[in-house]
Order: sequence, then C-alpha cells, then structure tokens
Amino acid sequence: MAEIITAGMLVIGDEILSGRTKDKNIGHLAEIMTAIGIDLKEVRIVADEEDDIVAAVNALRVRWTYVFTTGGIGPTHDDITADAISKAFDLPCEHDAAAMELLGAHYGARGIEFTEARRRMARMPRGAAHIANPVSVAPGFVIGNVHVMAGVPSIFQAMLDNVLPTLKTGTKLLSATVSCPLGEGTIGGPLGDIQKANPDTILGSYPKHLDGRFWTELVVRARDAERLEVVRAQVESMVERLTPAA
Amino acid sequence: MAEIITAGMLVIGDEILSGRTKDKNIGHLAEIMTAIGIDLKEVRIVADEEDDIVAAVNALRVRWTYVFTTGGIGPTHDDITADAISKAFDLPCEHDAAAMELLGAHYGARGIEFTEARRRMARMPRGAAHIANPVSVAPGFVIGNVHVMAGVPSIFQAMLDNVLPTLKTGTKLLSATVSCPLGEGTIGGPLGDIQKANPDTILGSYPKHLDGRFWTELVVRARDAERLEVVRAQVESMVERLTPAA
Repeated sequence: MAEIITAGMLVIGDEILSGRTKDKNIGHLAEIMTAIGIDLKEVRIVADEEDDIVAAVNALRVRWTYVFTTGGIGPTHDDITADAISKAFDLPCEHDAAAMELLGAHYGARGIEFTEARRRMARMPRGAAHIANPVSVAPGFVIGNVHVMAGVPSIFQAMLDNVLPTLKTGTKLLSATVSCPLGEGTIGGPLGDIQKANPDTILGSYPKHLDGRFWTELVVRARDAERLEVVRAQVESMVERLTPAA
Repeated sequence: MAEIITAGMLVIGDEILSGRTKDKNIGHLAEIMTAIGIDLKEVRIVADEEDDIVAAVNALRVRWTYVFTTGGIGPTHDDITADAISKAFDLPCEHDAAAMELLGAHYGARGIEFTEARRRMARMPRGAAHIANPVSVAPGFVIGNVHVMAGVPSIFQAMLDNVLPTLKTGTKLLSATVSCPLGEGTIGGPLGDIQKANPDTILGSYPKHLDGRFWTELVVRARDAERLEVVRAQVESMVERLTPAA
C-alpha cells in the first residue's frame, strides 16, 4: 500500500513579489521532495506582513504533513518570520538560550559586536528545535510540522540538507517521459482514454513551443514500477500510431 | 493621494510542484506589475485538482483587485482550469461560440482536424471575454476580475501584453537601491531606526552571499519621488558612517 506524505511551502518576502529577486527555492524544494518521496502540494508567496504570514502558515500546516518556509529570518526590521510563526502557534517569541550562546560565541571569536540586530536572529517560538546553518551560523527552527529556513538559496539548501534525514518519506512517485512530435490537440483524446483506463497512474501533457513549432512531453507517473512501465508503453504505442510516417 | 491597486496570482500545474518545470511566469508578472503600478501581493501554486483551484481562486479574487492565473487551459484531460474557474463563479462552462469559430477557421485553413480535444480549448465560463492569443490562437479569458492565461511562458507573456491596456493602475511604487558592503547584523539597528522615522516608505534589506562574503542591498520604496530621494540619502549616509575607512 502506497504511503502518501505531503508538503506545503511558504515563501516570505516583498522582494519576490516585486520581481526584484527571482525565487530559486521553490524549484529546488520541489525537486528534492519528489526525489525523496514527499508530494509538494501547494506553495504560497506572501509579503512581509505578519497577518498574511500567520494566515498562510496556519492554512498550510493543518492541511499538509510538513510545511517549509523560506525568508524573513535575518537581523533587520523586515525579518518578521519568527514573530509571525510564534503568533500562528500562539507561543511566545523569545531569544533562545542555545542560539544566543551559539551566535555570541561566533561573533565573540571574530571580534564582531553582538548587536541587538544580530540578537534578533536568536529569536524563535518557545520550544522550537534548531535547524543547523553551516553557512552563516544563525539557525533556522522547527516548531510542530513547520520548518523555518533562510531565503538566501545557498543557506536554504544547506539547512534543507540538515532537515531531510528527519523527515518521514512516502512511496516515491516514479515518472517516465515520452517525447511526442505531435501537438496536444492531436493526442489529447487518445491520451485522455489511456488516463481513464489507468486511474492509478497520472498522465501529464506538457506543451513545448520552440521556433514556432509545437511538440509535447508526455509524462506518466505512478508509485508502482511495473504499472509505470505498462502505461508508459501504452503512451508510446499511441504516439507511434498517430505519428505520420516520415 | 496614492491609489493602491493590487493583484494576486494563481499558478496551476502538477509539473511546477514536482519540479519538472521551473516556473518563469511569477517573476515576469511580478516585474510587469511593479513597472505599471500594481502591487502583486500574493501568489499561490496549486496542483491540477479542481477543488484546490476553486478554493484558491475564490480566496484570491475577493481579496485583490485583479487575479491572474497561468496553466491548465490546453486540450488535454489534465487541463481543467476552465471548469474550475466556472465552478468558482458558479457559471456553466461551455463551448464559447466565438472561440469555436476562431479555432474552427484556424484548423480548417491548415487542413487540421478540429478534434474534440481541440474543441476543449474553446470552453470557458458563460459570459467570459476573450484574451487574444497571437502565438497559438486558443484564447485565454476574463471573468469578473480573474484573467485566465496559458502556462507556456511565450504564450503567457503575449496574452499578458494584451491584458495590460485594460487594467486600472495605481500610483507606482518607486524604488532606489543602496549597495552596502556591510552585513545585515551591522546595519540592522540603524536601518530599523530610519524605517521607524519614515513610515511612508518601505525599507528592505537583502543579504547577498557570494564567495563566503556577506554584503547587503538596501532598497527604499516609496510612491512619492521626493520622499524616496530624502530617505535614500539617509540610508546612504548611514552606510557611509558605518563603513570603516579603507
């Protein structure tokens, strides 16, 4: 019996919504989740506004097995993720003792002042566990099923690597691709028939448009390797049948 | 008095959530909206599942001035956006007469069969207006404040170009960037003070991490050009004051 584990993602930051910064974390999380057998089911991007973050994280955390957030955990006034997540869980947001020690030692060893701004990075909901940050020390945190991580891609990726071994994973959704020289309008009907006859698989059709020509990538997804191959072969035969001889 | 016009975006498609396809439309819409004076406030990405699409579009359309959707308007069985949007508006989803004529003429002129799958692309909620598609003919549509467009980036961009002249725009949010050689921990406090003293502007701080070194881009945003310059100059002075002489 396939076990389904799901995830939602919350991207926090005005800079993504203004177009200044192009998000790179959604695609990365999506690839990693697929690879380890967790289905990413929903992503939301919200502004640096507390009420919006609270509402989004509360909507996501009750619906999906895991939630991953990126952004808003730095030392400046617009970094309000720790406060918003605490509010969502109705917990006090406070300077975590272990994080204070970690950051204090880090800056002390470098002769850098442990400013009030830097102390902000030790704030998290009471009872949260750390997510280690091998790049820039200041930890992310986990509270309930919500994993709070940095927005800078290199730091997000390093933090996610530390989170992965702690996650329960499900039966992987396997996939096979059939390249199709025909447009979707030609294969749409027969493909739909194959989908109907094989409801335990997911058939996707992705139109490609290059130099004025249309072609299609057909993707079969299934959690069972044998069923994947059976349906992939059906799709391939359908494409061969419909493609005019050269 | 500044007029604020807002937008939400809904990206529809399993292929984005699985990581197979990297979204390019969010960044494009974000840039265009900022350029014309509409604030993109929220983005959601959902799977090809009707209930999820209906819930997301209903949440977004009551909250923001405009909603823009991408994906799921092709001819295959997994293209269910027209049905879902119709359901969200409680309208019948039917073959639009003008779209049928347009597509019929297009395929007829090319000797291509107007298949049942291709006819699907003429379906939209009753009463919807077309969004012209100069790339591949099949139109997007507008119903209420929701603009339904293709997911293929070249087609999405062409459709969006046709939508832009129809949109009411607000007072543009102008921005100025100050490059800062210091990390956020150093400038976080003073920057927060400038933000507090200038609540009519938005100060953002974007940490950059390159080759093990941290620096920061500080961005001032305001709807008034004079105020923008006043606060930009304050931020610049602050950076100069805190940067050690070389």
